[in-house]
Amino acid sequence: MSRTFKITVAYDGTHFAGWQVQPEQPTIQGMLERAILRITGEAVRVIGSGRTDSGVHAIAQVANFTLAGWEHAAERLRSAINTQLPETILVHELVDAPDGFHAIRDAVRKRYRYQLQIGGAPDVFQHPYHWRLKGEMSLERIQEAVRLFVGEQDFASFQAAGSERQSTVREIFACELCQQSKSEFGAIHVAIEVEANGFLYNMVRNIVGTLAEVGRGKHPPSWVSEVIAAKNRDVAGPTAPAHGLYLLRVDYPAFADS
Amino acid sequence: MSRTFKITVAYDGTHFAGWQVQPEQPTIQGMLERAILRITGEAVRVIGSGRTDSGVHAIAQVANFTLAGWEHAAERLRSAINTQLPETILVHELVDAPDGFHAIRDAVRKRYRYQLQIGGAPDVFQHPYHWRLKGEMSLERIQEAVRLFVGEQDFASFQAAGSERQSTVREIFACELCQQSKSEFGAIHVAIEVEANGFLYNMVRNIVGTLAEVGRGKHPPSWVSEVIAAKNRDVAGPTAPAHGLYLLRVDYPAFADS
Repeated sequence: MSRTFKITVAYDGTHFAGWQVQPEQPTIQGMLERAILRITGEAVRVIGSGRTDSGVHAIAQVANFTLAGWEHAAERLRSAINTQLPETILVHELVDAPDGFHAIRDAVRKRYRYQLQIGGAPDVFQHPYHWRLKGEMSLERIQEAVRLFVGEQDFASFQAAGSERQSTVREIFACELCQQSKSEFGAIHVAIEVEANGFLYNMVRNIVGTLAEVGRGKHPPSWVSEVIAAKNRDVAGPTAPAHGLYLLRVDYPAFADS
Repeated sequence: MSRTFKITVAYDGTHFAGWQVQPEQPTIQGMLERAILRITGEAVRVIGSGRTDSGVHAIAQVANFTLAGWEHAAERLRSAINTQLPETILVHELVDAPDGFHAIRDAVRKRYRYQLQIGGAPDVFQHPYHWRLKGEMSLERIQEAVRLFVGEQDFASFQAAGSERQSTVREIFACELCQQSKSEFGAIHVAIEVEANGFLYNMVRNIVGTLAEVGRGKHPPSWVSEVIAAKNRDVAGPTAPAHGLYLLRVDYPAFADS
């Protein structure tokens, strides 16, 4: 009898060509599918809640797949899969899901974090994990600007050029500046977290690039409202680099983990 | 007129085959020499205070080299070299040193840090930066044991098998357990820092491997004194893995940074 599984996966995206399977390149999806094949002998498609780009990390990406013949406990499958993965990918949770559970279609909200280093010298250990902003940067101005993203709005200005979605309206539930810590070398580490019912392609990275312009004083905080109103990608700030981005959480309607 | 320079270098050792130049493999020394060659046209030997193994990191490794023809400020050379290095190596400081300055011979003390993760799930981001210890681990016992390493003693039991040094006596000035932080997933991150007038090959990793046995309760803290007295590598604990180790600092007699 076939069983559908829901998995929660963490990964360091630094040395992967993103989530999606690509010929001749290491990807998260490819590594998971290879691990499942080795353990079960079944060639499955692992469907992620969304494709993360090369360099993007995940604390809790969610995905689903279906096996025809696994008759043991879900936890045993999780342990076995982890033995076949590199140290940079870890399945934190694996549970039985209702038939038809689909990680993309059923997702109701997602939360991303974007990590920034402000000032200080380059850090050889932290380079792949945040975007380092040089020069003057006002956290007060960013703090004023983040709240303007909250609400159900048309985020067409923050969608990657060339992508086509039926609707560019999304509801942002939270957009927060989280101060994290001051490093030994005078750098400040902060994060911007965004939670919404869905995201357009590159939306968080474009929001962060826009907030960086505000932080630099190139535009006042209120400019964010103008950018949103323009519904035009050319008006917003640049796309922040992929390596500062983390998929933090994906929420689904509750189901009994049987 | 030839000038001798002293450089202080940070590196993430994860993707290097250690400090020392090796054919066909990326090394820190090789990257520095290539960068200097590109900037100055001079093929130099960069002499590090000690060779770090593959996977070992440095916060402040010190090295020296001599150029025949550099006539600009030292700071300009530093910036130029950094443009030719990968993001995982950074020259933090570059100053003129007295003729004959030698990073190995002149070093008077060094400090290393060894990072441990105790308990908790594997961390996909932190794997190359600490040794994860599973099972019961008593920090109190380790705390009792670390102080037994302090003083001028014969550390033959902590020297890698097969290495031959004239004397295996070294003075450890400090051996400290530093509690760092508790992670979100219940893991405890601690570090053991050791400062001495010199180190035998693998000495810190062998000290940490020995302390781990004490922490596990396999031996009481006082066992450390027995191991030291035995002057026999076979008696001590195993060698802790390279990737938890950081060269923190190398000290030299003061000279005017002219």
